[in-house]
Amino acid sequence: MKKMLLAAAALPLLLAAAPPAPDQGAKLRDAALAGDTVAMDIVEGLTTEVGPRLAGSEAEARARAWAVQKLKSLGFRNVHIEDTRMSGWLRGAETAEIVAPYPQKMTVTALGRSGATPPGGLTAEVVGFDSLAALQAAPAEAVKGKIVFVSHAMHPAQDGSSYGYYGPVRRSAPAVGAQKGAVAVIIRSLGTDYHRNPHTGVTSFGDVPPIAAGALSIPDAENLERMLARGKPVTMHLTLTPRFTGDVPSGNVIAEVPGTDPSAGVILVGGHLDSWDLGTGAIDDASGVGIVAATAKQIMDSGRPRPTIRVIWFGDEETGGCGSKAYRASHKDEKVADRIAASLFPLGITRGTGTVEAGADLGAWVEAGVAGADLSQDGTRYFDYHHTPDDTLDKVDPAQLRQNVAAWTAMLWQVANAREEISGVSPRK
Amino acid sequence: MKKMLLAAAALPLLLAAAPPAPDQGAKLRDAALAGDTVAMDIVEGLTTEVGPRLAGSEAEARARAWAVQKLKSLGFRNVHIEDTRMSGWLRGAETAEIVAPYPQKMTVTALGRSGATPPGGLTAEVVGFDSLAALQAAPAEAVKGKIVFVSHAMHPAQDGSSYGYYGPVRRSAPAVGAQKGAVAVIIRSLGTDYHRNPHTGVTSFGDVPPIAAGALSIPDAENLERMLARGKPVTMHLTLTPRFTGDVPSGNVIAEVPGTDPSAGVILVGGHLDSWDLGTGAIDDASGVGIVAATAKQIMDSGRPRPTIRVIWFGDEETGGCGSKAYRASHKDEKVADRIAASLFPLGITRGTGTVEAGADLGAWVEAGVAGADLSQDGTRYFDYHHTPDDTLDKVDPAQLRQNVAAWTAMLWQVANAREEISGVSPRK
Repeated sequence: MKKMLLAAAALPLLLAAAPPAPDQGAKLRDAALAGDTVAMDIVEGLTTEVGPRLAGSEAEARARAWAVQKLKSLGFRNVHIEDTRMSGWLRGAETAEIVAPYPQKMTVTALGRSGATPPGGLTAEVVGFDSLAALQAAPAEAVKGKIVFVSHAMHPAQDGSSYGYYGPVRRSAPAVGAQKGAVAVIIRSLGTDYHRNPHTGVTSFGDVPPIAAGALSIPDAENLERMLARGKPVTMHLTLTPRFTGDVPSGNVIAEVPGTDPSAGVILVGGHLDSWDLGTGAIDDASGVGIVAATAKQIMDSGRPRPTIRVIWFGDEETGGCGSKAYRASHKDEKVADRIAASLFPLGITRGTGTVEAGADLGAWVEAGVAGADLSQDGTRYFDYHHTPDDTLDKVDPAQLRQNVAAWTAMLWQVANAREEISGVSPRK
Repeated sequence: MKKMLLAAAALPLLLAAAPPAPDQGAKLRDAALAGDTVAMDIVEGLTTEVGPRLAGSEAEARARAWAVQKLKSLGFRNVHIEDTRMSGWLRGAETAEIVAPYPQKMTVTALGRSGATPPGGLTAEVVGFDSLAALQAAPAEAVKGKIVFVSHAMHPAQDGSSYGYYGPVRRSAPAVGAQKGAVAVIIRSLGTDYHRNPHTGVTSFGDVPPIAAGALSIPDAENLERMLARGKPVTMHLTLTPRFTGDVPSGNVIAEVPGTDPSAGVILVGGHLDSWDLGTGAIDDASGVGIVAATAKQIMDSGRPRPTIRVIWFGDEETGGCGSKAYRASHKDEKVADRIAASLFPLGITRGTGTVEAGADLGAWVEAGVAGADLSQDGTRYFDYHHTPDDTLDKVDPAQLRQNVAAWTAMLWQVANAREEISGVSPRK
């Protein structure tokens, strides 16, 4: 999801002497709501001309080149790539088939950073668990030499919190199974749809030698549950051949709206450029990078702001630690928050709990004590598409996207024009 | 979809002398609506224990064995397989990838009875057409050596009629492209969903040597349309390696509720046992065979009917001519129809046009002048799942399935207890 970090130094008194027109932010907000085309143009272009862009892949490098050209064409300044390095991983073949007693193919995908089966796959009996806790409680002899299947009870939640609650099934079950001697671990996809689309997402083996780790689509997982419930031994042939590609390049793409006052600090607004490789990453996170760029452009086009606004399109959000970093809050100035809430109310957006969820893109900054602001989306249907092949352009509603740009524009304007001291990070040289 | 053919000889006067209680059909109907579990048990069992069952495949043979056991266990008589032969076809590898100018993978599936690319695939420029008519009008030199892409404008229709209207894109475009020298033809899936599930379905080359013929999922088709609209040459690498398997076995599974009067004729009720190989065929047509068997069992359990009721679970509906056979009507006795309509009204089912759409399973009988009756389903969302991997058990709503059983029970009871002469076919020896 898109994230935004707001971190400005003390504003000079000059600002109080010549305050901006009080309705300027509202005007920008309403203009974005009615007619923003920048965000949709970015989402359409990135999904069509680049498509899937897994972190560390050649496609992610093409996405960075595309991003530089796009951000320059939009009029941003200081557009550049900050190179990074990362541990690469690429998907291989992936097939699953029940061999006995009910032969049929199943739909599977490897979890990010999964180990591999032999090239021709492996065949083993499936042992099923209805939760990560049940797997953890099982003796090693119940698991050794088997394909472990772990289910769970994830359901949609308006705030998306079920992803956090059931996330350990994906992140930890493969390592737990490996430690107990399983030959592979497959999970019921962490998702809330009923399509034959398995949901990928990163798993972590820590110091445990990785084994093959995959996710079945939810219809397939339920079919396997029915088979296991019939009581006969169920045998599966599983092929997952991803590979680690060593130390590979990634990078963040930066663009700025230079402020008028170098002492006024920097506001960071960010999303992530990389996507999982199954879909074209329209929701996650072409929409996010589109929204933050469109928002910054709204402010830029209305006149040069006092603080510098820095747009960051991050690389490697997904495989480097999606969802695993701390969700911590820092929110120091309630007066600014009041004005943000007032400016968002006309969009049907109500005030939240005051807790910032800056996610993987900007979470580390918030953790370090930098002031942050965030807008929460309706998460009810988000996990229907999350990390699946179905994350494609058609899922993005242009009117909803404009509403997002309008909301972020209203918030960014309020922060860029805040009279109060918020906190300090140094502007980038 | 499920189909039912009603074909009974003259009923003797004895019936008039001792008519069944007038509310007996309604009682059976309401019992089915409230509590039928037979249909769901069949759908659950067939999709779990057999799964995909392509006509002519080893899986279809397993389905026949499963069906015999199931129909016997339900108490039907004269349960047996009538062997048939057919021309076999099996899916192979299937991948599609844009090579330039916007490299990315696409989701493709082979159409039934498609030819094959070389094992390593082929690479060619894509030439796009927005309709079958546009392809037909194109000169051969615009097509020769290229991969033809044909789109269309199929949208949901409550009566499902858009499938008939756009069906020629799937059935004919590959042959048209082949005749003009295309190396392969891909179409926008005949479907109305927005998932990364291509819709298969049979195509026909007639006397034209088959070339590779596939369907892109709708999100992929729209992505390709956007690429082509940008004006640069688009190159695709396509691999489709299905193969024809020669003369292979198929068969129909028959079960009967013996009537008390051999002269009272036979009522045929049918659905098809085979399914496409991508999904588990829960909707198409495990639900259909479940409904007709549950319906016949309702009648059987209420006492022996005068005419024999013959349940037929057909093989090879899908690849042998789905949708291609004539939709013709025969409906000779409006008095029976009046009573059927009255018995269905409490289920919220209204009277249709009087035209029978007996489909591929029983269409040939109707065409030959045998009286038929049919119930039309809401087709609005049917083509979201039709012939896709998403045709799985979770799509079947138990309450809707019971309503179907109730409706068919009401209709079958009315026909089995009709006082009028309907028409005649001889009972099977």
